[in-house]
Amino acid sequence: MTERNIRVQPIERGAVEDEEVEIVERKGIGHPDSICDGVAEHVSEALAQAYLDRVGKVLHYNTDETQLVAGTAAPKFGGGEVVEPIYILVVGRATKHYVDESGEEYEIPVDSIALEAARDYLDETLPAIDLETDVIVDVKLGEGSGDLQDVFSEEERTVPEANDTSFGVGHAPLTETEELVLETERHLNGPYHDDNPALGQDVKVMGKREGDEIDLTVAAALVDAYVPDMDAYKAEIERIREYVSDLADEYTTRDVTVHVNTADDYEEGSVYLTVTGTSAEQGDDGSVGRGNRANGLITPNRSMSMEATSGKNPVNHIGKIYNLLSTQIADSVVDDVEGIRDLRVRLLSQIGRPIDEPHVADVHVVTAEGVTVSDIEADVRGIVDEELANVTDVTQRVIDGELTTF
Amino acid sequence: MTERNIRVQPIERGAVEDEEVEIVERKGIGHPDSICDGVAEHVSEALAQAYLDRVGKVLHYNTDETQLVAGTAAPKFGGGEVVEPIYILVVGRATKHYVDESGEEYEIPVDSIALEAARDYLDETLPAIDLETDVIVDVKLGEGSGDLQDVFSEEERTVPEANDTSFGVGHAPLTETEELVLETERHLNGPYHDDNPALGQDVKVMGKREGDEIDLTVAAALVDAYVPDMDAYKAEIERIREYVSDLADEYTTRDVTVHVNTADDYEEGSVYLTVTGTSAEQGDDGSVGRGNRANGLITPNRSMSMEATSGKNPVNHIGKIYNLLSTQIADSVVDDVEGIRDLRVRLLSQIGRPIDEPHVADVHVVTAEGVTVSDIEADVRGIVDEELANVTDVTQRVIDGELTTF
Amino acid sequence: MTERNIRVQPIERGAVEDEEVEIVERKGIGHPDSICDGVAEHVSEALAQAYLDRVGKVLHYNTDETQLVAGTAAPKFGGGEVVEPIYILVVGRATKHYVDESGEEYEIPVDSIALEAARDYLDETLPAIDLETDVIVDVKLGEGSGDLQDVFSEEERTVPEANDTSFGVGHAPLTETEELVLETERHLNGPYHDDNPALGQDVKVMGKREGDEIDLTVAAALVDAYVPDMDAYKAEIERIREYVSDLADEYTTRDVTVHVNTADDYEEGSVYLTVTGTSAEQGDDGSVGRGNRANGLITPNRSMSMEATSGKNPVNHIGKIYNLLSTQIADSVVDDVEGIRDLRVRLLSQIGRPIDEPHVADVHVVTAEGVTVSDIEADVRGIVDEELANVTDVTQRVIDGELTTF
Amino acid sequence: MTERNIRVQPIERGAVEDEEVEIVERKGIGHPDSICDGVAEHVSEALAQAYLDRVGKVLHYNTDETQLVAGTAAPKFGGGEVVEPIYILVVGRATKHYVDESGEEYEIPVDSIALEAARDYLDETLPAIDLETDVIVDVKLGEGSGDLQDVFSEEERTVPEANDTSFGVGHAPLTETEELVLETERHLNGPYHDDNPALGQDVKVMGKREGDEIDLTVAAALVDAYVPDMDAYKAEIERIREYVSDLADEYTTRDVTVHVNTADDYEEGSVYLTVTGTSAEQGDDGSVGRGNRANGLITPNRSMSMEATSGKNPVNHIGKIYNLLSTQIADSVVDDVEGIRDLRVRLLSQIGRPIDEPHVADVHVVTAEGVTVSDIEADVRGIVDEELANVTDVTQRVIDGELTTF
Repeated sequence: MTERNIRVQPIERGAVEDEEVEIVERKGIGHPDSICDGVAEHVSEALAQAYLDRVGKVLHYNTDETQLVAGTAAPKFGGGEVVEPIYILVVGRATKHYVDESGEEYEIPVDSIALEAARDYLDETLPAIDLETDVIVDVKLGEGSGDLQDVFSEEERTVPEANDTSFGVGHAPLTETEELVLETERHLNGPYHDDNPALGQDVKVMGKREGDEIDLTVAAALVDAYVPDMDAYKAEIERIREYVSDLADEYTTRDVTVHVNTADDYEEGSVYLTVTGTSAEQGDDGSVGRGNRANGLITPNRSMSMEATSGKNPVNHIGKIYNLLSTQIADSVVDDVEGIRDLRVRLLSQIGRPIDEPHVADVHVVTAEGVTVSDIEADVRGIVDEELANVTDVTQRVIDGELTTF
Repeated sequence: MTERNIRVQPIERGAVEDEEVEIVERKGIGHPDSICDGVAEHVSEALAQAYLDRVGKVLHYNTDETQLVAGTAAPKFGGGEVVEPIYILVVGRATKHYVDESGEEYEIPVDSIALEAARDYLDETLPAIDLETDVIVDVKLGEGSGDLQDVFSEEERTVPEANDTSFGVGHAPLTETEELVLETERHLNGPYHDDNPALGQDVKVMGKREGDEIDLTVAAALVDAYVPDMDAYKAEIERIREYVSDLADEYTTRDVTVHVNTADDYEEGSVYLTVTGTSAEQGDDGSVGRGNRANGLITPNRSMSMEATSGKNPVNHIGKIYNLLSTQIADSVVDDVEGIRDLRVRLLSQIGRPIDEPHVADVHVVTAEGVTVSDIEADVRGIVDEELANVTDVTQRVIDGELTTF
Repeated sequence: MTERNIRVQPIERGAVEDEEVEIVERKGIGHPDSICDGVAEHVSEALAQAYLDRVGKVLHYNTDETQLVAGTAAPKFGGGEVVEPIYILVVGRATKHYVDESGEEYEIPVDSIALEAARDYLDETLPAIDLETDVIVDVKLGEGSGDLQDVFSEEERTVPEANDTSFGVGHAPLTETEELVLETERHLNGPYHDDNPALGQDVKVMGKREGDEIDLTVAAALVDAYVPDMDAYKAEIERIREYVSDLADEYTTRDVTVHVNTADDYEEGSVYLTVTGTSAEQGDDGSVGRGNRANGLITPNRSMSMEATSGKNPVNHIGKIYNLLSTQIADSVVDDVEGIRDLRVRLLSQIGRPIDEPHVADVHVVTAEGVTVSDIEADVRGIVDEELANVTDVTQRVIDGELTTF
Repeated sequence: MTERNIRVQPIERGAVEDEEVEIVERKGIGHPDSICDGVAEHVSEALAQAYLDRVGKVLHYNTDETQLVAGTAAPKFGGGEVVEPIYILVVGRATKHYVDESGEEYEIPVDSIALEAARDYLDETLPAIDLETDVIVDVKLGEGSGDLQDVFSEEERTVPEANDTSFGVGHAPLTETEELVLETERHLNGPYHDDNPALGQDVKVMGKREGDEIDLTVAAALVDAYVPDMDAYKAEIERIREYVSDLADEYTTRDVTVHVNTADDYEEGSVYLTVTGTSAEQGDDGSVGRGNRANGLITPNRSMSMEATSGKNPVNHIGKIYNLLSTQIADSVVDDVEGIRDLRVRLLSQIGRPIDEPHVADVHVVTAEGVTVSDIEADVRGIVDEELANVTDVTQRVIDGELTTF
């Protein structure tokens, strides 16, 4: 194996933490775009697992296109109803017929697998949705071109060749604002929701930092069945506001102002009330790859890849693998190496070359005061090298559902 | 009220029972066309009931168009799987918005109701279908034109005016062959299936009588999960054959030959094995109104209406009401009046006229030996008159699911 | 070859012409059900021709399921517009991949062929429809099961075996009322329309004869672009009425009363005005096989087959072939043999038997006064035998578009 | 009016032109994602224009979701065919019913308008596509919520309030690599294509600069009807390579290496040949907002917005307006003010505030040697202020189709 082309350099800018204005956004798991991301990725996992179970290796597929067409709903205090179901079209390619070396033929029920995986995901993710009345899941999976197969199986993990010239980008550590935005949504959709079923999953968090003042704007869909009247609604909003304020204090000492559902107009009775906990029930369409990047955030202050990570084949789709891997590398480096304030990892593929040997692995750092790039370069290089050597671990972890893609 | 125009006359032919050749067919409840009929009718019942519950009366709708696009399946002894789900598109019109006299507005979730009703029906009717993997139910309900509404409510049952020039036709009694065909399917899909889950619901029965020889040809989809191997398959087929033969002896003293799955070729291993118990899983599309007539049979020896009865609004759709009512009248007459060997009732509507006053109610009879039409005319006329007077009972019974439409 | 089982017998009833009440209906070519029939049949012709051109023989397919979901329109005098397009889903099965004896592989673009054929048909049949704004044509063709192929090619016309136990039925001659209904629609949609573009193609004709009084009820969609105002509308209706009255005089000496658009209410301005010439633009869905039988009519006074003739494979689909052939036989017999007042031909297939040897060819006649069945039996038998011998001609004529199916 | 909050500051990094590694990508107009962007934007323009023509002002709509499901094709030298049509689903919301102040009611045929606009766009953009056989366009437009309407009409251009907290970002001038990538695609799809119809519209250009070495990788779909054989194919590829090389010399003095269709394998006969000029015909799905940003490029070296610009309402959708406006401001500033090497404009909205008064208009510059920020600050500020004052011009230009969004 040739030596990997790894560069470690100072970044051309200061740490994002030091910029004057910072904007960070996260679309919660119930946002229409995130629903699409989640469905696409869950379908992908189910297909990969089915291929492993049946054929012994992952065959070619990509399910990174899911379109959600919003429904119509009539929410009301105490419990309304969905009037016109949400329509979700799962789109992609998957190998349906396969003949192995011994001549044995396989027919893989990819459409049925995709249908079930999509419905399962909705059922688990959106507890207030009634799958029998509120959503129609449709599937259009074309036949994948069979010649793109790289071997990925339990016994054998060939490092595939990059099938595209593409790149991935990862950052670490998160800034305070980024962490705050990410954790706010995760806590609201996690422990907070467990105790407060009135909170729906469509929680969008926007963080804006100017100097040391952080504004956290939360848009949260409430579930009408758990909100008997306007007073209860106001109380729920206030409870969320307090919870987020308290949470913020754990992550930052900066001033944080929390806004919840600022578009509400109590006078006119116009509030963010839903039947299902997602705005997909009324007017908000969604699709894959339009929301959070692979690290769960939208960060205009940082380099981002346009590549949709969710739903892609984790064996040989370089866009997916490099976005996940670069994020993982950035995390590993920052965990293990002292003295780094901001780090960006970019992996560039070259078509036809094994993916563990990127055209360039480009690491840019902002070091802490008193630390130089040369102090840490060898350590960084070692970690990057090791992570690249284990690139197929990413594939396995994606199939196991251990890596989030949005 | 004007006197009803009821004619009682001798029929222009002999009794069907006396014809030399008789052909009778019944598509079982799991046949793709019957699935569509059943879905359409079940959706119709659910909508009618929802209108009554919410608005207090039935609003305009018609759901007599459901299209089934067959899936793909890979059945195998012991249990195979559906590869590509069946696609069912529920089509029709239904009133979504309504403003009552007091100005109160209603939004009726007709799409959600239709979706749930369709899925419920499939779940109840086809026990071997997995709703999460084997079928996609889609709904396209347009807005019905609001001006076709006739009042039908608990308190008030206006007799609507015929909105079309149409006709319905009913016959009684069933011939031996007709009864045999009907009961064969009902018994197979009823008590026999309860004890023999290997029998699927797609049971098609064709009866052919030439003189006194009856051929009963049964095409029965077996469910692979309950059929471990070819020997078991043969045993199931033989069991069905014996059951039907025994059953036939209860209904006729004529010679009956029973054929089951005659297209099977055991040598080539080509048998009628399915995953779901219906040929809709593989290659057989279906739609409403292409199978059984309102009395459950296809009877080329008798007059038939082309009108699709299933899925139509039972309040003012004259095609539906007159087909059901004429069958019911025929049954009532034959039950109550002695000396009738064959009877046909035709009801002709005239547009704009109340439906309890058909343009003509045309009753043709073949009397038994020694009985003349004039002997029975008054009795027949009385029953017809009474049934017409109670025409709105048909509407209620349809909504309650008491009348079968296919 | 064995001798064919042909029976010639007196019919069990009088001539339909002599019945007291006769009902006949024809749905014109622009009726939503007829549109589906026409699309299905046109797609079928295009596929059959494509198979012949590319592979040299017709491969397995069936396209006898097309679902039309009505649009929404805003017609107005002088020209309105379609608001929501009509949606037409072409459903069926067709062989997409084929390997001939020499190992050459063919990929037949059945979906593209079906799409084009459907759009072409709409374009030719409905001149007022704008294909770019008024209609969406979608296609769902599954893969047909390859083992149903019988050889039909230029050089070789194997007589296929019946793949089902089915029957077809034909009648001749048409009664006066039947001929009148059929010709009324054909003339209106033919020469009359050529001179009067205000007449749309959705012309439904209902004929009712009681004794010697015939009521012809015509429901005719007018095209708004050619109707500037209400006076023009009334004039168009009157012109149609006069045309049909004059036409009737050519076909019968009975009294004929002609009604046109009886549901119109000039006071309320409620008239049958359309943008496209078909009620499919607003509220009337359609599907294959729910309208006219193979002879172009719905005739409750006569035996009818439920089989949808349009769209089926003309090579081996017994339901299609026998319905067309029995009608053709009936016509031939009546053309060539004197003394027949009414004739019905029924062809019963037996599964597995060559289709030129039906299980029974059942011919029932009503002879003219002074003629007995035995006088004509030999002639009838000879014609039936010859037509059966040439059964594959039906296939060729269907492919060439020479036989109408609805 | 309050004074606008405009900040002009040095950027936190060097000019992108000076970075060591630069990556730039452009998906050509025939790329599946770009097709979706173009369809969505064209539908948007058509709707906006229709609202202006019919109602006198733009009503609420968003059509920023279009899903393309790839077809199947069988290209071959000299001309192949599409086997399974491309399926394009236009998704969004649009106001269908409107009542103006005088009580006049309007029904706007938004579905028909969208259908026609989408088909028109495909027809104009992809000359090798046959709309009758190669593509199915479907439309699912829900009813928009009526309360989001801001007035935009000929006479009256209210500056709307921001309905979301969002941001837009623009850059100027383009780096050499960016300009090269952009112009390569535009020239290939413009003058080059005019002379060379063998070049399809699916031209993807990837630029990678390391120091002063630029790699331009072009993936270009050729149209089979214009390519008789492999020699012709090779000649076409070489012609493109030379054309791009010559073009590059006009834009840069750096070393440029041009690669065209590097994945081709002439030995195996595997080349990038298509029937329609786009990979959408075979296996490549697409959707809106996954490709080029508002300036036509994907530039991981620069801040990007995730917002899909195409298809959004240009009256009040802040994500669309601010992305277009910030790009336009950046261009204006660089055109008018000397001494700027790199400039980034970010516009942040605040919900409820007029969009001509952003929460902050954040201008970061890298000045040329010898120029300080304070030298140019006043000029920059003036231009930004003026552009913001004329924000509604952006709306008009979008409706007129003068601004590209992808």
